[in-house]
Amino acid sequence: MDKIKVGMVGLGGRGEVNMPRLLMFPDVEITVVCDVYEDRCHNMIKLIEEKGHKAPDFTLDYKEMIARADVDVVCIFSSWESHVEIALESMRKGKITAVEVGGAASVQECWDLVNTYEETKTPIMLLENCCYGRAELLVRNMVRAGLFGEIVHCHGAYAHDLRRQVSAGKEERHYRQNHYLNRNCDNYPTHDFGPIAKIIDINRGNRMVSLVSMASKARGMEQYINDRKETIVNRDLIGKSFQQGDIVKTLITCENGEMVSLTLDTTLPRFYSREFTVRGTKGLYEENGNTVFLDGDSHDDYVAVDYLKRELDNATKFEDEYLPDFWKNITPEQIEGHGGMDYFMFDAFFKAVREKKPMPIDVYDTAAWMAITALSEESIRKGGTPVEVPDFTRGAYKTRERLDV
Amino acid sequence: MDKIKVGMVGLGGRGEVNMPRLLMFPDVEITVVCDVYEDRCHNMIKLIEEKGHKAPDFTLDYKEMIARADVDVVCIFSSWESHVEIALESMRKGKITAVEVGGAASVQECWDLVNTYEETKTPIMLLENCCYGRAELLVRNMVRAGLFGEIVHCHGAYAHDLRRQVSAGKEERHYRQNHYLNRNCDNYPTHDFGPIAKIIDINRGNRMVSLVSMASKARGMEQYINDRKETIVNRDLIGKSFQQGDIVKTLITCENGEMVSLTLDTTLPRFYSREFTVRGTKGLYEENGNTVFLDGDSHDDYVAVDYLKRELDNATKFEDEYLPDFWKNITPEQIEGHGGMDYFMFDAFFKAVREKKPMPIDVYDTAAWMAITALSEESIRKGGTPVEVPDFTRGAYKTRERLDV
Repeated sequence: MDKIKVGMVGLGGRGEVNMPRLLMFPDVEITVVCDVYEDRCHNMIKLIEEKGHKAPDFTLDYKEMIARADVDVVCIFSSWESHVEIALESMRKGKITAVEVGGAASVQECWDLVNTYEETKTPIMLLENCCYGRAELLVRNMVRAGLFGEIVHCHGAYAHDLRRQVSAGKEERHYRQNHYLNRNCDNYPTHDFGPIAKIIDINRGNRMVSLVSMASKARGMEQYINDRKETIVNRDLIGKSFQQGDIVKTLITCENGEMVSLTLDTTLPRFYSREFTVRGTKGLYEENGNTVFLDGDSHDDYVAVDYLKRELDNATKFEDEYLPDFWKNITPEQIEGHGGMDYFMFDAFFKAVREKKPMPIDVYDTAAWMAITALSEESIRKGGTPVEVPDFTRGAYKTRERLDV
Repeated sequence: MDKIKVGMVGLGGRGEVNMPRLLMFPDVEITVVCDVYEDRCHNMIKLIEEKGHKAPDFTLDYKEMIARADVDVVCIFSSWESHVEIALESMRKGKITAVEVGGAASVQECWDLVNTYEETKTPIMLLENCCYGRAELLVRNMVRAGLFGEIVHCHGAYAHDLRRQVSAGKEERHYRQNHYLNRNCDNYPTHDFGPIAKIIDINRGNRMVSLVSMASKARGMEQYINDRKETIVNRDLIGKSFQQGDIVKTLITCENGEMVSLTLDTTLPRFYSREFTVRGTKGLYEENGNTVFLDGDSHDDYVAVDYLKRELDNATKFEDEYLPDFWKNITPEQIEGHGGMDYFMFDAFFKAVREKKPMPIDVYDTAAWMAITALSEESIRKGGTPVEVPDFTRGAYKTRERLDV
């Protein structure tokens, strides 16, 4: 079989993290790299050569890259706001498309993805690595085995202190800064919502009906910058106010009756968490504590809260039976990319490419998950008014069958 | 000084739990007990005598009890739906009133409390014991000392598996059952909201502006009953559907910009938690893990989620400096009532009675906190529409000074 020829666009942080994972697949070759900054292209070429691979060509023009005959697959690792534009061009040129995660600037962008896919039938996958996370897949398998009963609620968060990145100097060209200065929304919903959407079959028998979002005030960035007035590199940010609320909560009602809650939590001091939580009539999983609790398990009643009496880390007891084999047999090289989930995600993507199978996270998932950003922005702007979530499948969700990652 | 003569109305579970705490105060005497069920009156008299105290009188008519000259203070431990009616009568008769927690059936009930208080000036306190909880007071003191910086968000939950109680047989006369069959709301918001309201100065410099609530489907009770078809005592419940969503989430926007989230979570298998969480620009507290994280504490970045790497139970390190002395010196007898918080709550109440000081949880707090139930019910009924929260202080919150419990 011929090699899969990949053109990579977006060579900043995301590109650097993803490149080594791409090159772990013997039948994948990076033929062209592309960025608006030429220095990034040279840097990426050097990194690829250092790994013993042939130096790719480079271009500053993504359209030129997409048009090339030696590009079969386009991997989009660029800034959030450029994802859709590049993905549309790629689909139109018939190049199989993989697009990094991020929220949508508008619902129209999401429809553009769907419409272009339906016109061109070019496969596209959202690179939502958390769908391949260890806890997410362990719990997904436990859900499918019925251990939690009927699922009625899930919760997730993107809880990640990004204050350093958001306040970075211009030389870091950090794409998040303008978003935090000018928008107020759940700007990064797919890490938490993606795995949940798969569990409750969004777009495949179920759909989001409406959502509401509310935001706290935005004080985290200003406090962070003010506390570092003497040392902060990006002097322009001193005294600036940020629009992005420190905590944004979104409540989503689904057609099958589940209520999902999401939290964006990126500008206050904290440890990393996705707060992944699955609640069913027969049990729960909570990432906070890595705790499984099944109906009939003993629990203290309300006499006193003992914060630590629950069984911590007991989800590990279920791994023998429910953790996918590829997670059990993970190699050190696979672990490099976000603990392993990047590798498993690209493995699934390239498998679908090779076998011409449906993408495990398809255009309808991509559109629905990314839309949460634009819809949450609208709801917050309207004081927490519920906003209808479009059905990007135009009714097809009723009969589309489950497709687990 | 004369003894404080207490009339107790409501002699079910709540009355039985509270009675021994009342009798720990040497200057408090229970003179009359009251319930609509005569057997409960006799039982309570017996329990009081067994503790070496004089047998109180009893009556089945709360109005008669309130009117008696040997009742100075009325303690209301009856069913949720009777709290307000009895409290209004008690205030009108000039009897200092203590009322157990529960949600309001309507916003009008809350106004009735406020209006009657303003007409009569009879002191009333909501018996929100969680305001006196160990973690809640430790963290409140840390907030006041500035350790968490400016507070931007708080979260709390009433997460308590009540499926046995809600499905109890008629002989238990459990007041919750009808609520779960017929309503859909955050029916018990004060355990989580009370301590948060105190921290962010609701009614004293701050107020709730609006809230939205959404509910998951209601499947927990039906599954629970169906799984116990052969053994369940209350045969009437088999096949019944419940209106109360298993998980209800409420998002509250406050005038000073904080966003508060609350969860009601009582009909699915789980361990008890109040999920008490305080987030500021300089640090956080999370009950889940009993974790304090302050700006500058080291944390793993996003390479891999390690669910247990955060410092568990490190809030205990702050107890020396910030835990109130009465919690440090707690006695075994005090611990009996919900781990101690019941005793500290009644201690504060009787102190205010003796010294004729303002009630630490006053009528405006009572009205605002209880109103969340009625407002959440309205928001859920309207599909998650934001509902304005009345200002029960009629503008006085702007100048009312902080009153910590």
